[in-house]
Amino acid sequence: MIERLCVIGVGLIGGSLARALRDAGFCREVVGAGRNPAHLQKAVDLGVIDRYETDPGRAVAGADMVLVSVPLGAMAAVFSAIKGHLAGHAILTDAGSAKGGVIDAAREVFAGVPAFFVPGHPIAGTEQSGVEASFASLYQGRRVILTPVPETDVQATARVREMWEAAGADVVEMDPVHHDAVLAATSHLPHVLAYTLVESLARLGDDGEVFDYAAGGFRDFTRIASSDPVMWRDICLANGDAIQLMIEHFVADLNTLTEAIQNRDGQLLLELFTSARDARNRFVDK
Amino acid sequence: MIERLCVIGVGLIGGSLARALRDAGFCREVVGAGRNPAHLQKAVDLGVIDRYETDPGRAVAGADMVLVSVPLGAMAAVFSAIKGHLAGHAILTDAGSAKGGVIDAAREVFAGVPAFFVPGHPIAGTEQSGVEASFASLYQGRRVILTPVPETDVQATARVREMWEAAGADVVEMDPVHHDAVLAATSHLPHVLAYTLVESLARLGDDGEVFDYAAGGFRDFTRIASSDPVMWRDICLANGDAIQLMIEHFVADLNTLTEAIQNRDGQLLLELFTSARDARNRFVDK
Repeated sequence: MIERLCVIGVGLIGGSLARALRDAGFCREVVGAGRNPAHLQKAVDLGVIDRYETDPGRAVAGADMVLVSVPLGAMAAVFSAIKGHLAGHAILTDAGSAKGGVIDAAREVFAGVPAFFVPGHPIAGTEQSGVEASFASLYQGRRVILTPVPETDVQATARVREMWEAAGADVVEMDPVHHDAVLAATSHLPHVLAYTLVESLARLGDDGEVFDYAAGGFRDFTRIASSDPVMWRDICLANGDAIQLMIEHFVADLNTLTEAIQNRDGQLLLELFTSARDARNRFVDK
Repeated sequence: MIERLCVIGVGLIGGSLARALRDAGFCREVVGAGRNPAHLQKAVDLGVIDRYETDPGRAVAGADMVLVSVPLGAMAAVFSAIKGHLAGHAILTDAGSAKGGVIDAAREVFAGVPAFFVPGHPIAGTEQSGVEASFASLYQGRRVILTPVPETDVQATARVREMWEAAGADVVEMDPVHHDAVLAATSHLPHVLAYTLVESLARLGDDGEVFDYAAGGFRDFTRIASSDPVMWRDICLANGDAIQLMIEHFVADLNTLTEAIQNRDGQLLLELFTSARDARNRFVDK
């Protein structure tokens, strides 16, 4: 049970957690924080938060749980703003899509990773953003990865786990470096590919004519290219090394396939496509 | 109105056209052809076709409209099998995803592209295949591209257009070379990328562990990698040059983005992602 949850960054991720915890009766009060009073008032009007502060330091006062769900590039500034204002019993967690950079920021701002900080990442979301897009069931059956470091208090991790489980999530723990490699593969690389594909086709110079002949598969394939550009800029900056490694891995495999096309090697093409289809059917649509 | 439609290759594409034309009352009789009697009997049981022949030459006898909807690699063999068996008034069309190779095959088999052959391509389909997956509304509001060549009879093109319009499609005409370039961009390249991504991740060596942390976006992004490997092998063989050009174009753009990541160039990343997102919102989800 949380007495006062403070959500810094009341968008799809933070808003959906607040809704889920309210619905579950797991949280007595929700205080929102952010830079835009109009957005925050909308969150109040939607019943997502009870009240808000635009100063993160004021917002965290008295909160026993603080979730920072802002773009990765804003994490360090938020940590600085709340430093010295957290209650003695407060637990701090975040929802950043890459963990190494957030942990570094916490280490720097607090002069060592605080025991009360539990780095986390809910593997959920849509290409939508904003509190208007938030909904209580977003985390139902979804994975949340917590990446505690040796400094992290075990009780704090347990409390954050309880919170996400109350929201319906399936919580796992993982080493932050492994997390960042896995997410580079399954999320960051696909986004980079989708953004590049759309940009690449848009620049073909037919004034968008090619898109007139795109079928449903193309719509699905490029849906993630409608995601928030600021969020994805920050992810590419924060997890650049892991993403670059995955791009290299991917380009090597794409070269193999391109050579098979060039050599009209039907046997190899059939093997690659069959193997990929089987992997997808085995692992993704299982 | 079609008196007798012959569908060679009764799968998702051919089966859905037969269903749509029956529903529209545009077709009196449907004869199916294929290699597998069990599949064809299933099509009869499902009410998609009236009867079948396993010999394409017998199947086309007396048909006034013949649709060849087989993988691209089987087109030439089908043309050879029906040559000399078509009725004098028969119109021949196909549903191949790349037109250059089909037109070449027709030119070779018939010693010149016949006036009664109208190359076509319905931009529809799902990652499913087989007659069980066929449904009458597949072509509702979808584009069908016809790529007549100078040899093609204008009346034959008009008849094929009428047929697809009766199935609910929006029919356009296009030069075959332009068709193959456009489809390389919007369909063939995305499939190549999706297959490569899944194969690339499957080979990371974690026994599929990465896929456990894939979110909904990944599922959408890789859905087309569940498509029929034989069909996609044939497309890569038939339209290899255009696909290679698009891969080169894409890889150049991916390199630009990779360099931006390497240089931690947040401004360029934001510009690229914003431009891509806007293009998708403008052209794809319009």
